[in-house]
Amino acid sequence: MELGVGGSNPPCCTKKMTKDKKNKPSKELPLGFVDRQEKELLVRDLIISNIKEVMIKYGFQYLETPSFEYTDSIGKFLPDKDRPDEGVFSFKDENKWLSLRYDLTAPLARYVAKNYLEIPKPFKRYQLGTVWRNEKPGPGRFREFLQFDADYVGTKSLQADAELCVMISEILEKCGLSKSDYIIKISSRKITEELFKKINLNDNQQKLTALRALDKIDRLGWKGVKELLGEGRKDKSGDFTKGANLSSQSIDSIEKELKKKSPESEDLIDILKIFKDYNFKNYEFDPSIIRGLEYYTGAIFEVNLKFDVKNNKGQAIQFGSIGGGGRYDNLVSNFGNYDAPATGISIGLDRLVYAIMQKKEFEVKQSKPVVICVFDKKSMKEYINLLKLLRESGISTEIYPEESKLKKQMEYANKIKSPAVILYGENEIKIGKPTLRNLSNGEEKSIEMKELVNEIKKII
Amino acid sequence: MELGVGGSNPPCCTKKMTKDKKNKPSKELPLGFVDRQEKELLVRDLIISNIKEVMIKYGFQYLETPSFEYTDSIGKFLPDKDRPDEGVFSFKDENKWLSLRYDLTAPLARYVAKNYLEIPKPFKRYQLGTVWRNEKPGPGRFREFLQFDADYVGTKSLQADAELCVMISEILEKCGLSKSDYIIKISSRKITEELFKKINLNDNQQKLTALRALDKIDRLGWKGVKELLGEGRKDKSGDFTKGANLSSQSIDSIEKELKKKSPESEDLIDILKIFKDYNFKNYEFDPSIIRGLEYYTGAIFEVNLKFDVKNNKGQAIQFGSIGGGGRYDNLVSNFGNYDAPATGISIGLDRLVYAIMQKKEFEVKQSKPVVICVFDKKSMKEYINLLKLLRESGISTEIYPEESKLKKQMEYANKIKSPAVILYGENEIKIGKPTLRNLSNGEEKSIEMKELVNEIKKII
Repeated sequence: MELGVGGSNPPCCTKKMTKDKKNKPSKELPLGFVDRQEKELLVRDLIISNIKEVMIKYGFQYLETPSFEYTDSIGKFLPDKDRPDEGVFSFKDENKWLSLRYDLTAPLARYVAKNYLEIPKPFKRYQLGTVWRNEKPGPGRFREFLQFDADYVGTKSLQADAELCVMISEILEKCGLSKSDYIIKISSRKITEELFKKINLNDNQQKLTALRALDKIDRLGWKGVKELLGEGRKDKSGDFTKGANLSSQSIDSIEKELKKKSPESEDLIDILKIFKDYNFKNYEFDPSIIRGLEYYTGAIFEVNLKFDVKNNKGQAIQFGSIGGGGRYDNLVSNFGNYDAPATGISIGLDRLVYAIMQKKEFEVKQSKPVVICVFDKKSMKEYINLLKLLRESGISTEIYPEESKLKKQMEYANKIKSPAVILYGENEIKIGKPTLRNLSNGEEKSIEMKELVNEIKKII
Repeated sequence: MELGVGGSNPPCCTKKMTKDKKNKPSKELPLGFVDRQEKELLVRDLIISNIKEVMIKYGFQYLETPSFEYTDSIGKFLPDKDRPDEGVFSFKDENKWLSLRYDLTAPLARYVAKNYLEIPKPFKRYQLGTVWRNEKPGPGRFREFLQFDADYVGTKSLQADAELCVMISEILEKCGLSKSDYIIKISSRKITEELFKKINLNDNQQKLTALRALDKIDRLGWKGVKELLGEGRKDKSGDFTKGANLSSQSIDSIEKELKKKSPESEDLIDILKIFKDYNFKNYEFDPSIIRGLEYYTGAIFEVNLKFDVKNNKGQAIQFGSIGGGGRYDNLVSNFGNYDAPATGISIGLDRLVYAIMQKKEFEVKQSKPVVICVFDKKSMKEYINLLKLLRESGISTEIYPEESKLKKQMEYANKIKSPAVILYGENEIKIGKPTLRNLSNGEEKSIEMKELVNEIKKII
């Protein structure tokens, strides 16, 4: 341990440093997890309060289920078959497996099955919560998301599906987007279901592989998807993904059907009629949307933005949808007691916030504190009186918490983007008039105590 | 499988049912996790917004760290030594261990160590987030909590410790509590540190056992604690907990010291002086408070309620603290690069909400939707026009989403506690005057369309 101390460093020194470094705890985050800063969080809070307001106006009620569920309660509906527990974080607990929820829908189905006799039918609930996916770590792949969901449980009425689309549209516009900024794409799992019947595709595993392939149209285009519907596809890295092994004739039928421009399935025709009654036009029928989760049984929706979203280098990126959902008529009945057809929509908050922050129209005010500088600890009571005066008027204020050089205090105030500092040294205290320095223009003014609040309010 | 169907049930039937039940997914929640209902969540939202407002006024900035950290980043500071991973939920991930955070303080220290050069010094941040403890499951023991924290990092100034106590007091009063409803208890880890030196207690493991014993004064009283400081204690169930094996002389010294009524340690004397400058009186020196986490190094605080909190049977329960915190000067320097003494406070939101909901003064309004009844699907457009009219005026409204008997629709409206239903059948549509039924008194009125919004606003 003491080798390498003093004199010229022997070769072992490098090794020692490595070892020491190894013994220190890691300062890094695991891949797929991020720290979030004030500006993003304030925008998110504002968006959350907008979403809540609209959902309440639409008659949804608030519910919160916990992060953990018994693994068997939430089922395995994720597409990520090659990951541990099929993409879910799970623990063994007193001989039963627990999992962190991967969405808010499966736990809602459990809640309804558990409380069926007590809840109103239909049951309309909204929920905000974190969900986790144990995806293969990699750049830009997050494993923790914040979702905001609204669901109708216990009705087959397509009015419910239609309202969800109308509601999400109202939410986006309340968040400052205009009609030209987004589109709700709509399709139905009944289309692929019929299609698979027509081409005699009956094997469940093969169906899932085909659905998973189709879900990649956005990313791979039809060429790549057709490879995945056939024998398989080799990606740029050389990795080979096995395909669904459909005949080229079947693949052609699928492509033809999923490029149709108007819906033929009855559920969609009805939903489009209801849209007309709402005078709701900001949608598009797109049979090529699939949605990743396996539990959908009918109409499916996807919310896409139409403006360029940029990465931190200013390059437009392929952004995908900021939300979606659909009808899942069997999730509650899986629990074996009650039948409760359902439909729901989920907003991916992190993505929505990321996109909306790029719209100039959307600004949030960050209240930064006015800093009262400390000249002499003995005057602390005077500083505290100033502090209380300002805080009582609702002004964010703090005393610099150390006795230190004024320069250091000013650096701090600038660093936190404080609007102003108050200088209240011996002379100022003597005449009872603090000096206010406006940090945006550097101006200093001696101010009567009774004018201080007003003067500061002019600045912040 | 078909045994037991038809005729009288043979004995195997019970077995069959058990088996079927086993194959169904569980509708129950794992122990230690709960579903939360609207009323609680609305109170919680209001409390959260109050806390945020005060913390911003005190100059804290918003930060969010993720749920997962590398296990070694957040250390092992929990007292629950007999649980897997010492009370933490952990996963193996690509050869490294990840853990769900057990508090918001250890991740903050990691954040500061990682971003030390970029952040302002001192760094003041607030954070709201869920934390998890893998406690032994049992009734009333939760394994998921919502915490709201504020911390000062990078200062030794006791002004910071004092401000946290003043701030939490302002928060509680903003949430409707009066000065007689709560007390901030204050002590210092320096007291136990000195005490252990005095009685020649130097072994770290033994110190921890002693601290853990002292942390149970609330629950076990001095008698039980003294057993735990000595050879050990047998609880009601007969389970034996090994003690710290201190001599009876040492135990007596500890008891004497921790029953003192005024502080002798310099840090507390200074903090009390600052309290005086703030004119803050709602505190009490209590050397018997310890706080469970190991990382504290100086002043420690605990927020206790002074009114009776009742369980759902109306019995007063032993409720413990709704928050606390203290100084942890070594948590950042553990990462080996920077020294950043710190102090913080944490509010246990679930407990605070539970207690505050029992104060009559605290009421939240739950906006329940007006229900538009459906007489005939063909009139859907008329219903939708009514719906849009009301929602545009900000009134929470919904169309009953099925065509069904009026009786069923009324039952639904009553079940969700709707303030009113709108009856808009063929005759009403003909004359363009919907009927409004007030559900709190049963009154029905035919109303001119242009008066509808006003009439409803009188009711809700």
